Amino acid sequence: MPQPSKTDPGRFFEDFRLGETIVHATPRTVTAGDVSLYTALYGPRFAVQSSDAFARSLGYPAAPVDDLLVFHIVFGKTVPDVSLNAVANLGYADGRFLAPVYPGDTLATTSEVIGLKQTSGGDAGIVYVRSVGVNQRGEAVLSYVRWVLVRKRLPGTPAAIEHVPELPKAVAPEALGAACPPLSAGAYDDSLAGSLFRWGDYEPGERVDHVDGMTVEEAEHQLATRLYQNTAKVHFDAHAARGSRFGRRLIYGGHVISLARALSFNGLGNAFHVAAINAGRHVAPLFAGDTVYAWSEVLEREALPGREDVGAMRLRLVATRDLPCADFPLRRDEGYAEGVLLDLDYWALLPR
Amino acid sequence: MPQPSKTDPGRFFEDFRLGETIVHATPRTVTAGDVSLYTALYGPRFAVQSSDAFARSLGYPAAPVDDLLVFHIVFGKTVPDVSLNAVANLGYADGRFLAPVYPGDTLATTSEVIGLKQTSGGDAGIVYVRSVGVNQRGEAVLSYVRWVLVRKRLPGTPAAIEHVPELPKAVAPEALGAACPPLSAGAYDDSLAGSLFRWGDYEPGERVDHVDGMTVEEAEHQLATRLYQNTAKVHFDAHAARGSRFGRRLIYGGHVISLARALSFNGLGNAFHVAAINAGRHVAPLFAGDTVYAWSEVLEREALPGREDVGAMRLRLVATRDLPCADFPLRRDEGYAEGVLLDLDYWALLPR
Amino acid sequence: MPQPSKTDPGRFFEDFRLGETIVHATPRTVTAGDVSLYTALYGPRFAVQSSDAFARSLGYPAAPVDDLLVFHIVFGKTVPDVSLNAVANLGYADGRFLAPVYPGDTLATTSEVIGLKQTSGGDAGIVYVRSVGVNQRGEAVLSYVRWVLVRKRLPGTPAAIEHVPELPKAVAPEALGAACPPLSAGAYDDSLAGSLFRWGDYEPGERVDHVDGMTVEEAEHQLATRLYQNTAKVHFDAHAARGSRFGRRLIYGGHVISLARALSFNGLGNAFHVAAINAGRHVAPLFAGDTVYAWSEVLEREALPGREDVGAMRLRLVATRDLPCADFPLRRDEGYAEGVLLDLDYWALLPR
Repeated sequence: MPQPSKTDPGRFFEDFRLGETIVHATPRTVTAGDVSLYTALYGPRFAVQSSDAFARSLGYPAAPVDDLLVFHIVFGKTVPDVSLNAVANLGYADGRFLAPVYPGDTLATTSEVIGLKQTSGGDAGIVYVRSVGVNQRGEAVLSYVRWVLVRKRLPGTPAAIEHVPELPKAVAPEALGAACPPLSAGAYDDSLAGSLFRWGDYEPGERVDHVDGMTVEEAEHQLATRLYQNTAKVHFDAHAARGSRFGRRLIYGGHVISLARALSFNGLGNAFHVAAINAGRHVAPLFAGDTVYAWSEVLEREALPGREDVGAMRLRLVATRDLPCADFPLRRDEGYAEGVLLDLDYWALLPR
Repeated sequence: MPQPSKTDPGRFFEDFRLGETIVHATPRTVTAGDVSLYTALYGPRFAVQSSDAFARSLGYPAAPVDDLLVFHIVFGKTVPDVSLNAVANLGYADGRFLAPVYPGDTLATTSEVIGLKQTSGGDAGIVYVRSVGVNQRGEAVLSYVRWVLVRKRLPGTPAAIEHVPELPKAVAPEALGAACPPLSAGAYDDSLAGSLFRWGDYEPGERVDHVDGMTVEEAEHQLATRLYQNTAKVHFDAHAARGSRFGRRLIYGGHVISLARALSFNGLGNAFHVAAINAGRHVAPLFAGDTVYAWSEVLEREALPGREDVGAMRLRLVATRDLPCADFPLRRDEGYAEGVLLDLDYWALLPR
Repeated sequence: MPQPSKTDPGRFFEDFRLGETIVHATPRTVTAGDVSLYTALYGPRFAVQSSDAFARSLGYPAAPVDDLLVFHIVFGKTVPDVSLNAVANLGYADGRFLAPVYPGDTLATTSEVIGLKQTSGGDAGIVYVRSVGVNQRGEAVLSYVRWVLVRKRLPGTPAAIEHVPELPKAVAPEALGAACPPLSAGAYDDSLAGSLFRWGDYEPGERVDHVDGMTVEEAEHQLATRLYQNTAKVHFDAHAARGSRFGRRLIYGGHVISLARALSFNGLGNAFHVAAINAGRHVAPLFAGDTVYAWSEVLEREALPGREDVGAMRLRLVATRDLPCADFPLRRDEGYAEGVLLDLDYWALLPR
């Protein structure tokens, strides 16, 4: 008797049910090895994540794992179930880091389907999921919404239910800070941290060019994307890519986010913690051989209720390809300027 | 007075003595860093090796190190003594994983020369070695036989003794499972593991296309092969390779095995443990820029004596280059089909 | 009101004050992950650094971190403050490894400006710094002097003070060995170490060809240089490099040192510890795609006062590009032979 196919074809739009919870495969223990690879892949220099001694001086039990490494691992698990048949990753919202992650912690992810809407063409639909990463004690470490355009198995079939969730334009300041323990007063050492500019030294509207550029190699983004156990085919298969629209492998969008964040140390060296991701758009694809530059704009500056140790700064982080950012490229006419890759809106915490 | 050369030229065929034991250099502590690199290099998603929490729920003290990472490290140590002057790696047999390896364990390898046979041309000979990897307590973790074609120092000299060992076509089922502790009944979580198909759901003769492709870069295979402290020149020296038969660096055959095994998760997600390697043939070389695909065939399915927790499945794992495997490429006429790289026969364990 | 620029432009020659101490940013906890990456990047095979069990048998509490990995991390921290506007890295002197570093230790670096001398042209000057790496207990682990040619912000301005420090041509033997604990008598296992040649088996004047070649990829040197949090732009930005003198990214000179040192295992397998760096010159730049070879010359052999366990050997380590070293290439006419990349003078310790 023929056996059922053992291979997972991924879900199509019709396979999602509003309100269902998907348990994603492959829990993952994050280790010092992952932290080293993250350093080697992007070169981040934030002292809190780099040094156990520095982190302990502030009140952490050890150096926490970089927030974006947590994001990539939690995100990677959703790919086989949510976006294997995705046409495009459309957006992120309401991303909140809820507890610090330390080497030795094990992360697992579940996603709830919170919205479904088919496209006017009827051959695809938008799936909204809230994904939650939890540690081995069941504590949520990250919660975020993303929406993706997913192909239908059978184009033309009508969707049963349509629902578009309401999503906040930005995380409210009072929801920030859960993943940052209270910092010991006076313990933060600006010299070791590498920046004299604290929360109070930045003003909304201020723009910072991060100056440096970083060229990406195929081996690098492949190592990164596999480290996150992200299985999206477009990142790995040059043979299949030859017949695709771009003719080559696409780089995982999160790789661009991590590169831009690491570059942003030059100008934002005390913005040590990503507390929330408000919104994000991958404006254009990045390919191996391209050089990434970045700049930031301060959108808001907010105190956190009841906290004197740290304050929040809402930042727009823009990454570009082969385009230095001294004049802060962003818009042209109705759209984005040529060369812009990423437009990310996030909250960072800085010492006060 | 001139000193004796301090450089190791490697052994030639005449240097091997039947029955001698070679102690290989450079014991190696395996760490969480090695595990992370292994994940980054191949993207494996088997939950047992990925998650301490998952492994502990089954009865392991922690997530064990991937079996093939153990194989590569144990194997790498043999290269300077056994195959530095090898013309070809001819085969493997009777490979058995005998104890789990955890981060922090230190591996060392010894090899016994169990067979010698010169070629009819008289300029080389086949050396058979049984290599045993042991941990810091002296417990064997892996034992396997391989045979390689090794150049003679002086072509034409007759060999003293010839002996070809008898080797099993496959490891017997009753010899399997030593590296897998008894799993807690009912603890194995299929959702977290990422596959609903257990031991009983596969049938001999069944074939599974693993669908995805993975392109290999020079930096990746070099990082991997150095991680295993494998010193075979052909993998690293592009300058010398320009004058060689292929004109470029060859990729370590074990890299192909690990890629194919990682790809096989899609279709064999519960085949979490490589218990034995019965035979293996590197049919053709792989080069950087090539894309590896894979498929598997179920050869046998056997219960393990006295164990209800896991069962064994004998699998043929075939890897190809730039050739998707929907129609299971393998043979053509007397030989292998164009594009086939690897034909590996191994035993995997799955939960029952 | 416009804010002051938050971006660090790096120091120019005029910004250095004789006698000042610079606290460098980003303390760094060294982990097993860094050790694994170091192994993957260079393939070192010295047993002391590779195996906890081997190191413990000698009296170490665990396998120490490779000396050059310590050097690169300590060095990397100095780049943003010392050499971001450097024209050239001119030399090293008096480098001493003062305490072993183990995974879990946190390294930080300070530099004292010990010399300043402007060039005759007046548009740049030489800055001499003594950099000291300390661990989390404040113990110095490495001290070395380097001097770099740094651009002036305003060419033509006279320098206030000029001072050229006196530096030793080589570290004295009695200053060696602080980072090597007393080794247990008779415990050193030559077979596991991979070499039968001990301290007494080498003679001054002896030269050793390390035979093997290692080709470098862009991804590899970028991963390495970011791992060390070294921010020198020339290593990472292919877009900017297109308009530069070489038209492409330069490889961090320390990458060449580590490659040559790893290659030197073949012939110097018992030279397990770099005790001091006497001098070093990067003769020519290395680019991706080039293959590195190396050879060594024994310059001196010295006992260490009060120690019977280990002895010191002063070595010249020469690395070349696309040039095998069977005839020990070094000089031609007044300068270096074509293809020579590195001329390093260091002290290694070997068991007696």
